[in-house]
Formats: sequence, C-alpha cells, structure tokens
Amino acid sequence: MTDVHPDVADTADDIATMEIRGAATIADAAAGALATAARESDADSPAAFREDLRRAAKALYETRPTAVSLPNALRFVMADVTGDTVAELRESAVASAEAFQRELDQAQARLGEVGANRLRDGDVVMTHCHSTDALSCVKAAVDQGKHIEAIVKETRPRKQGHITAEELRDWGVPVTMIVDSAARRYLDRVDHVVVGADSIAADGSVINKIGTSGLAVNARDRGVPIMVAAQTIKLHPDTLTGHTVEIEMRDESEVIGDAERERIQGDPDGFAVENPAFDVTPPRYVDAIVTERGQFPPESIVVLMRELFGRDTARPWKA
Amino acid sequence: MTDVHPDVADTADDIATMEIRGAATIADAAAGALATAARESDADSPAAFREDLRRAAKALYETRPTAVSLPNALRFVMADVTGDTVAELRESAVASAEAFQRELDQAQARLGEVGANRLRDGDVVMTHCHSTDALSCVKAAVDQGKHIEAIVKETRPRKQGHITAEELRDWGVPVTMIVDSAARRYLDRVDHVVVGADSIAADGSVINKIGTSGLAVNARDRGVPIMVAAQTIKLHPDTLTGHTVEIEMRDESEVIGDAERERIQGDPDGFAVENPAFDVTPPRYVDAIVTERGQFPPESIVVLMRELFGRDTARPWKA
Amino acid sequence: MTDVHPDVADTADDIATMEIRGAATIADAAAGALATAARESDADSPAAFREDLRRAAKALYETRPTAVSLPNALRFVMADVTGDTVAELRESAVASAEAFQRELDQAQARLGEVGANRLRDGDVVMTHCHSTDALSCVKAAVDQGKHIEAIVKETRPRKQGHITAEELRDWGVPVTMIVDSAARRYLDRVDHVVVGADSIAADGSVINKIGTSGLAVNARDRGVPIMVAAQTIKLHPDTLTGHTVEIEMRDESEVIGDAERERIQGDPDGFAVENPAFDVTPPRYVDAIVTERGQFPPESIVVLMRELFGRDTARPWKA
Amino acid sequence: MTDVHPDVADTADDIATMEIRGAATIADAAAGALATAARESDADSPAAFREDLRRAAKALYETRPTAVSLPNALRFVMADVTGDTVAELRESAVASAEAFQRELDQAQARLGEVGANRLRDGDVVMTHCHSTDALSCVKAAVDQGKHIEAIVKETRPRKQGHITAEELRDWGVPVTMIVDSAARRYLDRVDHVVVGADSIAADGSVINKIGTSGLAVNARDRGVPIMVAAQTIKLHPDTLTGHTVEIEMRDESEVIGDAERERIQGDPDGFAVENPAFDVTPPRYVDAIVTERGQFPPESIVVLMRELFGRDTARPWKA
Amino acid sequence: MTDVHPDVADTADDIATMEIRGAATIADAAAGALATAARESDADSPAAFREDLRRAAKALYETRPTAVSLPNALRFVMADVTGDTVAELRESAVASAEAFQRELDQAQARLGEVGANRLRDGDVVMTHCHSTDALSCVKAAVDQGKHIEAIVKETRPRKQGHITAEELRDWGVPVTMIVDSAARRYLDRVDHVVVGADSIAADGSVINKIGTSGLAVNARDRGVPIMVAAQTIKLHPDTLTGHTVEIEMRDESEVIGDAERERIQGDPDGFAVENPAFDVTPPRYVDAIVTERGQFPPESIVVLMRELFGRDTARPWKA
Amino acid sequence: MTDVHPDVADTADDIATMEIRGAATIADAAAGALATAARESDADSPAAFREDLRRAAKALYETRPTAVSLPNALRFVMADVTGDTVAELRESAVASAEAFQRELDQAQARLGEVGANRLRDGDVVMTHCHSTDALSCVKAAVDQGKHIEAIVKETRPRKQGHITAEELRDWGVPVTMIVDSAARRYLDRVDHVVVGADSIAADGSVINKIGTSGLAVNARDRGVPIMVAAQTIKLHPDTLTGHTVEIEMRDESEVIGDAERERIQGDPDGFAVENPAFDVTPPRYVDAIVTERGQFPPESIVVLMRELFGRDTARPWKA
Repeated sequence: MTDVHPDVADTADDIATMEIRGAATIADAAAGALATAARESDADSPAAFREDLRRAAKALYETRPTAVSLPNALRFVMADVTGDTVAELRESAVASAEAFQRELDQAQARLGEVGANRLRDGDVVMTHCHSTDALSCVKAAVDQGKHIEAIVKETRPRKQGHITAEELRDWGVPVTMIVDSAARRYLDRVDHVVVGADSIAADGSVINKIGTSGLAVNARDRGVPIMVAAQTIKLHPDTLTGHTVEIEMRDESEVIGDAERERIQGDPDGFAVENPAFDVTPPRYVDAIVTERGQFPPESIVVLMRELFGRDTARPWKA
Repeated sequence: MTDVHPDVADTADDIATMEIRGAATIADAAAGALATAARESDADSPAAFREDLRRAAKALYETRPTAVSLPNALRFVMADVTGDTVAELRESAVASAEAFQRELDQAQARLGEVGANRLRDGDVVMTHCHSTDALSCVKAAVDQGKHIEAIVKETRPRKQGHITAEELRDWGVPVTMIVDSAARRYLDRVDHVVVGADSIAADGSVINKIGTSGLAVNARDRGVPIMVAAQTIKLHPDTLTGHTVEIEMRDESEVIGDAERERIQGDPDGFAVENPAFDVTPPRYVDAIVTERGQFPPESIVVLMRELFGRDTARPWKA
Repeated sequence: MTDVHPDVADTADDIATMEIRGAATIADAAAGALATAARESDADSPAAFREDLRRAAKALYETRPTAVSLPNALRFVMADVTGDTVAELRESAVASAEAFQRELDQAQARLGEVGANRLRDGDVVMTHCHSTDALSCVKAAVDQGKHIEAIVKETRPRKQGHITAEELRDWGVPVTMIVDSAARRYLDRVDHVVVGADSIAADGSVINKIGTSGLAVNARDRGVPIMVAAQTIKLHPDTLTGHTVEIEMRDESEVIGDAERERIQGDPDGFAVENPAFDVTPPRYVDAIVTERGQFPPESIVVLMRELFGRDTARPWKA
Repeated sequence: MTDVHPDVADTADDIATMEIRGAATIADAAAGALATAARESDADSPAAFREDLRRAAKALYETRPTAVSLPNALRFVMADVTGDTVAELRESAVASAEAFQRELDQAQARLGEVGANRLRDGDVVMTHCHSTDALSCVKAAVDQGKHIEAIVKETRPRKQGHITAEELRDWGVPVTMIVDSAARRYLDRVDHVVVGADSIAADGSVINKIGTSGLAVNARDRGVPIMVAAQTIKLHPDTLTGHTVEIEMRDESEVIGDAERERIQGDPDGFAVENPAFDVTPPRYVDAIVTERGQFPPESIVVLMRELFGRDTARPWKA
Repeated sequence: MTDVHPDVADTADDIATMEIRGAATIADAAAGALATAARESDADSPAAFREDLRRAAKALYETRPTAVSLPNALRFVMADVTGDTVAELRESAVASAEAFQRELDQAQARLGEVGANRLRDGDVVMTHCHSTDALSCVKAAVDQGKHIEAIVKETRPRKQGHITAEELRDWGVPVTMIVDSAARRYLDRVDHVVVGADSIAADGSVINKIGTSGLAVNARDRGVPIMVAAQTIKLHPDTLTGHTVEIEMRDESEVIGDAERERIQGDPDGFAVENPAFDVTPPRYVDAIVTERGQFPPESIVVLMRELFGRDTARPWKA
Repeated sequence: MTDVHPDVADTADDIATMEIRGAATIADAAAGALATAARESDADSPAAFREDLRRAAKALYETRPTAVSLPNALRFVMADVTGDTVAELRESAVASAEAFQRELDQAQARLGEVGANRLRDGDVVMTHCHSTDALSCVKAAVDQGKHIEAIVKETRPRKQGHITAEELRDWGVPVTMIVDSAARRYLDRVDHVVVGADSIAADGSVINKIGTSGLAVNARDRGVPIMVAAQTIKLHPDTLTGHTVEIEMRDESEVIGDAERERIQGDPDGFAVENPAFDVTPPRYVDAIVTERGQFPPESIVVLMRELFGRDTARPWKA
C-alpha cells in the first residue's frame, strides 16, 4: 500500500481493522478516499491519473472483499469519472464521489419512508439482529405518528438484539425481548417481520444474519408478512452471473467459552463448534425488499440490479 | 401436610423444591411414596386406608400439579389398588407401586430400542435441549453398532445443549454444536431431528422446550423427518377432554442480566422480557412419537391414551 | 306405514316433513318412537315382537335415509334389545331407548365442555352456518367465565348466521357479522374456527355446510386452528366400508328469485343454478373433532367409530 | 370549484356523485375534462396556463382520491404537456389527452386478446364479481371461436355475479351460478379462475372485490391457475414507495336489513356488521396479471409500473 | 430342511425360487404347508408336536424373510394353535390354517368392495405398477355398474403397467397408457390415484413400487386423492417397534443392457446403475388405506396393526 | 419454395427433415441461410431486396413453426437490416446474420459459466433428458476445478439420459443412472436439479421434456433447488401476449411395440397410448433460469424477453 496516498492507506487500514464498519459507513469512507486520491494525485497524464485512481480503488477493495457495499461504492464512483485532461478527470472524480456520498446520505432516510409506509398504526413488528436499515423503517413510522410495538429477538451469539432494543426504547417503542427460539410462539402477535440484509442476490435470495431463514419460514407458515430493508449498496453484482455469496464462519468463542468447551470435548476430533454469520433466505419466503428506490418483490430485485450495474459487472480497478 | 406420613411429606417436599426433578424421577418417587403411605398406614378399616392413600396422593399431587408424570404415576398406582381388607389393600397398593416402578425402570430402555430402530448406520441427528428419552434412542443406536453423528443446538436460555453434547461425547458420538438460529442452515446435513417432550396432548400436539415448533416447521420444509421420544408418563390425560396445557413462564433473569436490562429499559412500562419454557408443535409437523409401547403417528397417540387412561380421567384423590 | 303403530307413523311423518329436524332432535324422536313401538306391540312371540320393532325401525329409517343421526339412533337402540320372552324384550327395548335418550340428552353438554376447554379467555372465534354443537362449546366457555368474541359468517344462501348471531348475543357474546367472502380478511383476528358437522367419515373427512372446506383451507393457510364439534351420532358408519356421503342438492330458489333468473337466462339450456347443501373437508385441514367422548384428531375418528359400531355395520332392520 | 371551467366542474361533480363510474370511464372523462380545461383556458402566459391545468387536475382528483384510474389519467395527460407558448401548451395538452383516450379505448380489447390467448377451447372459467376486464378475456376467446363455459359466483353482498351471468349469457356462454361458499366444491371442474382488479400494488398484491383472496388460496390448493385481468390504469403508483391501498368499508345495509339487524342486536355495543369492499391477494396465489401491454407474473408488475410512472410518483397538480 | 416334511420342504422351495409369488399366494401356501406339517407330524407329545410345527414355520420363514405376508401368515396360524393333546393340537392347527386361508380368500373381494365404494360412476383412476389389490377396487366398481376409465403408468423398469392394462381391458375399462414421467401432466384428468402396497408401516408410511412416492406428492399438489389398497397381510408388525423396512435393490440389468452399459461406462468406478424396487410414501400424501377390514387414514393404521398383532411381535417359531 | 435461392431451400429442407436439429443448430443454420439469401439476391431495388429476404425468412419459418429458436433467429437477424440501397441492405443483412451467429456461438459457454457459478465443489446434480445447455453448466464447473457427481434419470421413452451419461463420463463425472420413477428416492443425495428447456414463457413457465414438472414438484418438496439452463433463443415471444405453447404429441411407437400393443388392446376404441413430448413447470417450482445474459428468477424472465423482443412481437416476414 506504499503506492497510494497516505490518507487513502489510512482509510483502507481503518476498514481492514473494522475501525470503520457498517455497510453504509464503509461505502462512504471508500468514496471519500477515492475523492482524496483524485485530489491528491500528482499524475501528469490522464492515463497516469486513471492508474492512480485504480490503484487506490484496488487498495481499498482488498481490505474486505466480501463486504458488498465496498466494491459497489468503488464501482459507482469510478463509473462516472470522465474527462480528457487530468484536471477534468480530477474534477469529475471528486464530483462523482461527492454525488455518491450525498445519495448514500439520503438513502437510509428514503428507504425508511418506504418501509414505514408499509406499516400501519398499531402494528407489532418482530426484529432479528440489529439493522439500521430495518430500524429506519420503524423510526420513520414513529415519526409519521404511528404507534408501533416491537418483539425483539436477542440474536445469539452476539445478542445484537440488545442494541436494537435500546434504540427502539430511545424512540419510545415498547419492546418485548425474547430468546431466538421463542420466535414462532410470538408470531401470532406480530403484523410484520422486519429485517435487514447483509447482501441480496440476483436470484432474489436474501443473505442476512444467521436465523433469518428459519424465522422467514415460520413467518410464512403463520401468515405473517416479512419485509427486508436494504439499501441498494447491498445488492450483490457478482450474483448476476450466478456467483454465490460466501458465508463467513466466525470464531467459535462467540458461541462457547474455553472452559465449557474443554469440559465437553472428549476426543479432539469429535467436538466442533460451527458459527456461521449468515444464512440464505429464498425469495419465496420474503414479501418485499424495501430500498431507497422503492419496494420490490424479491423476484424482481434483479431488475434493479441490472439498472444499477448494467450487464458489465467487471471491476474497474482490475488490471 | 401434617396428616400424611413424614416420609411422604419429605418426598412431597423434595418434589416441590425440585430436589427431585425429571419426569421419570418424580414418577418413581411418587409411586415409592404411595407404597410407603400404604405400608405405614395405621388405618383400621378399608375406608380409612383408602382415605390415607388418597390423602398421600393429594399431598404429592399438589407439589407440582403441572408436571404430567406426577399425576400419571399416582393414577396408575391408585387404579390397581383392590381388596376387601386393609391387609389386602395394603398388599395390593405396594404391589401396584412396585409394578409401576419396575415398568418405569424399563420404559426408557424400551423406548430407546424403538427409536434406535428408526435410525440407520451413518445417520446424523439434530437435537434440541436435553432429553434423556431422546438421547436413549441415540444411545441404543450406538449400542446396536450404528455410527451416529449429532448436531446439537445449544438451546438458549439455559443451554441444556451443553449437557446433551457432553453425554453424546461420552458415548463417542461426534458432535457439532451450533446456536439455535443456525438450525435451518444445518438441516440439509441432518437425517433425523430427535427431541423429547414435556407432555403430549390428545390432539397430537407435542409440548416441548421452547424452539421445538420452529425447528419442526423448518425440518418439514426441508424434508427432514422429526421423531419425538416420550415415555407414556408424558401423555396428558386432561387433554382427552380438551384441556390445554398451561405453558410455564420462567424468570427473565435466565434471558438477560440485571445491568443489561436496566441499560435498555427507558420507560418502566415499555420494556419486558418474556421467557416461555415450552411451545406447542402441531401433529402435522411430527413424523412419529416413540414410546416404550412402540411408535405412533402423532394423530394416533390418542388411542394409546385411551388404552392407558380409559374414559374416566377423574383424579382418584379428589374428594 | 299401515303396519306400524299410529304414534310411530306420526313421528315418521314429522321427520319426513321436517317438523322434527336437527340431528339430535331426530335421533331423540326416533328412539322414543321405538320405545313406543315396543310398549304398544301386541306381538305374542319373541319373533313377532322383533319383527314389529324391525318394521318400526324401517319405517322411521325410510323417512330420511341420508340424515345420519337417524340410522345411528335406530342402530344403538336395536343393538341392546335382548331377552327370551316378549316381556323381557319389551323391557329391554324400552330401557335401551331411554338409555340412548339420556345419553343423547347429556351429549351436547359434555361436548360443549370439551370444546370450551380448548378455548382461552379472550379468544375470538369464527363461526359458519348455525350448529348447536359448535355453539355449545362457546356457551360452555362463557359459562366457564371466559370472555369470547365471535365473527359470524352470514352463510348464504339461507343465512343461518343470523340465528347464530342471535343466540350468541343472547349469551352476551360480542358479534361481528360479515359476508362469507370476507372470511379470509378477518382470519387474522381469529383464534379458532369452530364449526359443526353434518356427518363425519371414517377417512376423517368432515361433511358440513357448503363453504366449510374453503374456510378450512384458508384457516390453515393463515395458521388459525379449526375445531369441528360433532356428537357421535354424526359419525357415519357406512363410511367404514368406503361408502361416500351423498351431498344433497337443494332448490335453486334459495339462491335466486324467479324474476332475476328469467332475466339472466337467455337460452333454456345455458343457465343453471346449483345449490349443494354441504361440502367435504379433508382431515388435513382440521385440527380436532370434539365429541361428547373427548377430542380426536380427524385421522383417529375411525377408532371411535369402530368402538361404537363394531365391524358389523349391517342395518338391523333389514330383512 | 368556482375557479375551474364549468364543464370541468360538471365532470368533477359527475365523478363525485358516481354518475360517472368504472375505472376506465372515469379515466376517460378526466382526460376529456383536462382537454376542455386546456381548450377553454384564457390564460395569457404559459405559467398561468399551467396553473389553470393544475387547478383542473386538482379539482378532478379530489372527487375520488382512492379511485386509482383517476390520478393515473391525470398524471399520464399532464406528463406530456410541453411547449413554450400558451398555444403550444394548449395544443400539446389536447393532443396528450386525446392520445390517452385513444389508448384507453383500445386497452380493454388488447387486454382481452392477451387473456383469451391463455384460454383453450373447451375451458371452464370461474368468475368473481363483475369485471369488464375479466369478461373481455372471455369475450375475446369466444370471438376466437373457442367454446368457454363459466361458473359464476354470485358475489355477496351486491350480487354483481348476476350482471356477469347476464353478459356471458348474451354471448352464448353456458353459465352455472353458485353461492360464494360453493366455490371450492366447483374448482375441480374449473380450468381457470379469471378475475379483475380494483388496483394492483408494486409488491405484486392484487386488491380486488372481497372474496378474491380466499378464492385464490383455494384455487392454488386445488391446482387451478388464476389470472387477473387489469388495464394498466389499475396499477397503483403510490405503492412503489410502500404505500398501502386503503380498503373501503361500505355501508352495512348492503349486508343486513334494518329489521333483521334490530332483531339480532341485544346490546348496542355488542353487534357490528363489517362490510369491506375489497381484500388483498398476495402475488404467490396469482399466476398471471393480464394487461393491454401483455401478461406478467405478479412479481414482475413492478417493472411495468416503473416503465409507466418512472421513479417520480409526485402528483403534478400539487402546489 | 431335512427335518421337515417333504411337502413342506417343497413349498418352501417353491417360495424361495419364486415359483410361488405374490403376497396372497405366498401366505396361502405357507398356511397350507403348516396344515400339512400338522397333519403329517408323527410327534408323540404335545411338546414334540409344537416343535415340529415351529420347525416347519421356521423353514418357511427363512425362504424370503422380507416378504411381509409370509411371517404374517405363519404368525396368524400359529397364534390359534391350542390343545392339551397331540390330537387336539393337530386339529386346532389344521383348523387355524384353514380359517386363515378362507379369510385370505375373501379378503381381496372385501377390500375391493371397500375401495369401489370410494369410486363414483364416471371416475378416472390412475394406476402405478400392477397390484391385484388395487385392481380389485376397480373391478368391484365395474361390477357395481360404474363406468371407470384408467390412465395406466407403464412402470419402468419392468413395465408391469402392461399387465395392469391387459386386465383392465379384459373388464372393458378404457385405458390410456403413458410413460411414468407423464403422470403429472395427466393428473388433471384423474379423480383417484389407486395403488397397492408392498408393505405398510406403523408410522403410516406406505412401502410400494418405486415411483409411488413421487406420484403421491404430485397428486397431493394437484388436489387428487390417493388411495392405497392393501390387505392386512401387508401390515408390517416389526415396524410397531420402530424397525424400518429394508428396500430391495434389484439387478441393474432390468434398467440397462450390457452393451449399452459398456458403451457409457468410461472408468470402472465412475458409472453405476441403481435399481431400488420400492420407495416410501409418508402418510401425509395418502388419503386412505383400504383393507378388507375397512378403510383407514394412514395415520390410524397402527390401530389395526395393534388389534391384529397385539403388543407381542415376537416370532412364534423362534427358539 | 421455388422462389427462394436453392441453398436457402436446401437449409429449409434440412430443418424440415430434422437433418438439422437442436435449438442452437437450427438458429445458426437459419441465420446463415438469410445471409446467403442476402448475398445471392439479384434484386434491383431496396423493396425487392427486402421482399427477397422476407420470402427466405418465411420459407425457413414454415419448416418448423413450433421450434422457438427458429423464428427468434429470423427475427433477430431481420431486426437489424437497414440501409437505403440494395448494397447497404445486403451488407447490413450479412453483418446482422454474422453478428447473431457469433453471439450464438458464445452463448452456451457464457451460460455454462453462470450455471457453474451456482454449483459448489462436491455437489451432486440430478439431470433429466439430455440438454447441452444444462450440461454446459456441469462442464464449466468441472473446468473450474470443482468435483461434481451426477444422478442421471434415464428419461423414458427415448432414454436420452444415456447420451447425458456418456458425455458426463467423458468429462470424468461419476454417474449413477436410475429409472425416472426413482428420482424422489435419490433427491436427498442431490444438491441441485439441473435441466434445460424447450422454451420459456412470459409467465415464467418452463416448457421442457415430459417429466420435468413432476421432478420439480418433488425437488421443491424435498428442499432441493432446481435451475433451468436456457439460452435466450428459447424465450418464446408469442407468450408475451398470452399465447400458450403447443405441446407436441409424439408417436406411440416410442412407448410400446406393435406386438405388445395388440396383445393388450381388446376393443379398438378402448386402448390408447399418449406420448406428450413436453410438460409445463410453473415458475414457483423453479429457483433460477440461467441464460447467457445472467441468471433470473423465473418470475422476472419476462423482463429479459421485453428487452430482447420489445413490445412488437409481430413477425417481420409476414405480408
């Protein structure tokens, strides 16, 4: 990373070490870093300038290649860089980055409006994990003057449900917290299941926090609609060409302590703990995907992906 | 409880304080206490003897009226007490209690055989919570020389999955432990879901540890058969006449610590934690109920209940 | 009908003309008429007495051969007629008829208790048509002190929902009336669908007022349990041997007025109105059949039928 | 409404009083009124002319804001008004209105062709309510020389099935009329369920006459395909941003007469009649939506909506 | 087999070599052989006589231990052998065998009646493989004067559908033959799927010719009822205690010729042909099991098994 | 066909006699023939040239109007023919034909990549019939270094599974061959069902080799995803306007030999063999359609059809 501007390298570093985290925050930082790279480039030819930009994008990309918002941010910014001179290119790159950041800034609020419109006064929602996109729908509904109550799944292993509960309480939303296994029992009190997404695939599948798919199957079985709130930076362009999304396996220490583990484990090879971060919910269990560009049945999200990414899903920072 | 023999009172006390716990252990203790009451009764007439026995039964029953194995044990023992003299009644009562205890002693092993017969060499089972009935099926399969592997759900809030994992490891069964939310993702590696039951209703519903119903719905959706292992002392006679089984709500401290709770709770009325111990799985999601009297589709368990309890579900210790 | 006692002939007449109607009322009248036939017989030999009884049964049976409670009543009464002399036979026949009537008299109350036990305080039930068996469950629940509300389908073409609504109002049950087509929309407010039965088949099918099957499919799809309340006189013995229940087609004037009909009908052969009285709900859409002998999953009702009717489903009044 | 041309005011009045009714008729009248407003405007500046047009649109819109074809007509006409002078604007507005009317005029015939292509010679269709769009498919099939038969649901409370039956009879289509509750029983004779739509939402839901959703669930359960015939003026642009469609509650006198009502009602608060005009059918129960622009799976109708309405669903007559 | 009577040995041989085949034929022959063994025994003590009989039963059993009708026949005959002297035992054994044979002789006709009662005039049935039990239902319906048509699946690999078609043609039943893969396409013309069973398990599963389960799933999906015709000698007593039924793998030459096989097979280890004879249909896809003792929902067949076999499923010829 | 160039006539002939067969081969030949027609045309005016081209297209089209790739090829080539002079038109037509051929040439390889991306290392696929599109996905996965195994259905009546097995063996893919009826039993070993398509309709239905729909229903029931591999020349433009795809009925001699047929057939009118070539799988049973333009949920394929065909589906060679 010696060949990129130190500020870009710093941002890349912060993303790699998860100082900067959260899909939107990462996307914003990456766009900002590209603007910096553009501003600070001392290239003396358009080709050299483009190479500088490409190098910066590559450095940023390689910090966390599986976080879909990162390549999406890079792609969106790079796509609009045009010009015949270095000056033109620089101006265009900065403008493109800033436009992306502005849009990103408004995306969650717009998405929240769309999701809130699906909720009625008096509705009870069930949440899983902690998703600012999902919560923005509830917040917007509250801001619209609707009374909303929430049943919050604690979401083992990391109990992000506690963060969700805390935010909802801040907005005055009454919360009932339950363990994940109790979800089915409480579904008959629920009007909407509202979850976020880690990423969304072209076949309409939703990749989200482990437990989402099991919840969705039960929600469908009990007749409860499920909405997925996801900004378009969550749409996964590689899936247009059939690629599947790699599911991250996280450390087993999130699930079990060392002492407990040793107590159980008889034979070194006979005890394993597996801790997948996400699972895949097929589109037939989801009622709507809510984005800042409106709502879509999951089977149609591919249309939005094609509008945004076109046919060409090649990465512009590749050699 | 001053009017029952001190040993009976002690047993009642131990059941009430959960010194004695587990469906079979409680049933065994209750039958033993009735035998003691019979042996120690100083009644001088058959009527007085019967009254003594009834009083003992009542004292025992009232310790934990919702634990279905307790009234079942009392009912089975009392049903076979016959005789024209105190001596005959005493002998009959002791014999009845001992017969019940003997049968109980063998029931789990027999049930295990039946369940094991459903498993094939090489099968992977998924467990939920900790059930000695369910585990007896796996143990018997291992004893039959079959190689069995297990995916063990940790089972929040009390993580009885750890006990399950430990026992399976003792028997040499390879174990993979997962959080409850990961169950659906692992179902495609699973050949059988094997769970126990807290009680079973005449309409074929299975009352078991919270999370069972959600798991069963997903197992059916993924084409994985689910077997419920339950000794007949788990069959709930009151449900023959339509009574539903009360679901115990347990303390919220099992779900969340005090500090965390306070941090989240903004408004005293707006944050609640609910911790139901069990849920209800409808028969259409269960493939077989395995008992010491053979296996049954859940829709037919009512037949076994009628054989065992007859039409008269009145409690013999009632005035 | 000249060869039966005039009182028997009168009863037969009243059943034929629907002066006497409703499954239980018909059964009661038929049993009473058999008692009369026994009392009034002037037969001078056991064979002649039996022939008198058989003739009375046949006369009664032929009034409405498709009303299942009628042959069931005749069969139950005839089954217990024993004796070596005319006097013994007479006494036995009268006793059998009276025993049947007593049991019948209590059956609906007992059934109501069983059904009421399935309902919880605060439940909302949805009804279809007018069924005293179904209503007895609601009434018993109200008598148990439970607050019950009802959504009442009007039940075209004859709008028996109005009678249902009126009775529920008499008991203080809040009622919301809807057209039949609105049922699905209201199912998400409903805790139990409660209906009666015209008859029940050995394969677990429920024959009931037209519209029951469509409602049951929607209830299952929305996760709402459906209970069928039916005294055992509704169990159809012929179905044990595979016979299907003939569905009565009623007059089209119940559906459309003459003037309206003429206005629509262009070509004499091209316009028809069909008005089936009942439809058939397969067992997989029903959660429980509630009888005076307890509740059963529909797949197990065959067991109760075999207990009551034995293997021999021949009609005792046949030559 | 003093500030709009009297002819526009008249049209607005006729729409408000339902002199003008039916989605297409309203749309046609509204477009015509806009043309009139354009022709008759005495504005002396482009801005004033636009203000005149906006005022007319607003007046028309406010007559029945929930009839989706009305704002759609206004939006389509207004979208194509361009020009730099009053004369150019006037010409453009009139042309736009006439183009819309022409297209509207052909839309139902085109839609009928598309729907008819899905029907085969000898098919039996089931209808619900009265929809000219749905009937145009049957009519076109008949015109193609196919023999079609119809099972017509009477459609309580207003029995629009009678109108449907009458039209079908006029075209020589054999009709069997049934009560709504009989639908499931007749589905095994049916090849296609064909219904119209009140409006269609971006998530693929179909809002149509109460009873449609229950019918669709049963059709799916019985393996009968269901097609929804709807001109594109039924597509609801507000739903692109998550808005839900308000369901009109109609007068209870359509369901029950005053005398009958009084007879039933015991306690003023305890008897209610609810009469929702429409219900919502989720896309998973619909096989195809047939429009004048071709057929679409319901999950893809959002694509057509985005083509027609763009991203901007703001109303051009808003201040 | 030197220690059994030569005639018994002959029968055993004929069963082993499949000279004697078909469930009922085997059962009849086995009962006959036991009668012969009884008649020809020269035992001089009751114990010796019983030993002779046990030895004969064992010899017969071991010819084809997986053909469920064989042990069932032996068990039924042996169960009724009682007596204190050799003469009494002999007479009892012969009588028991003859009674079994008589009942067997009538069983198929009775079963056919029950199944025929489920069929209506004009029905179209779909058959799979060749089952005399299934065909007896069709035959009885024809004998009842009903017009029945048949869609006959050819049933690869052995095309037993040709035999089925030939028999149906003999009875005047119009037949349409299709390849197995065409079944779903033809289900919308079908009123009943009618199949036989190789054996039936206590959990309600039906073991039958490969292809039955896939057909049943499609029949359920298309709303077509499926009936399984099976005499009670097909009920598998071992399954009461959880045992599963071993699925026979047949020779691959039934599927592919040697030349063709060689042409395809590149690498010795990389090409296999698997030819399972049967598959397992879960009870939820079957509407009724039709036996000579009446019809049962598959979930209740366990009740009939318990009636016939009792709790004791031990084999009486075991040491 | 006297009025077209002899080479065009030859190609038409070869298509008609199935010398040229397979969707892609036909499309390629037709495009080539149009290029020939353009090159060889001696027209002396643009109008005459266009007429020549139209005549050639018509001649080609009429050889096999139901093979969807044929009119698609003609339509694509004709759509890009532009120019003001004969020379320009000729050059444009040849270029258009060659461009189509180039794209076609790459389409299967691109599609294979997309499908292969959905497969993981170690997956087992199940195939039906023989489809080069489906196989290209497996081949590409093997080329990506993934280990793939295959369960190959033989696919009666023509056993194209043998060709499939042979190709897979050539690529080193281990193959297990089964009869079609065994598919459900083997689905629990399968990770993906991969099939081709004869054509695809705008409502998302897949028309493919008979047996596909029954397999898809079972795959869904067992939780196995199903992917359909189809180049865009399989998309059926007529279905955009509701037209259904005619299912070819093939000769019965593929199903049964003459001798066997005669043996079975009793009455000339009573025995028929039906041999449909294809069936229709509704979109709800398919997880993804894989094309050379990426993957789509079946409910969205209409979007790709509209992109490719536009609204105007008229045939350019029509008068």
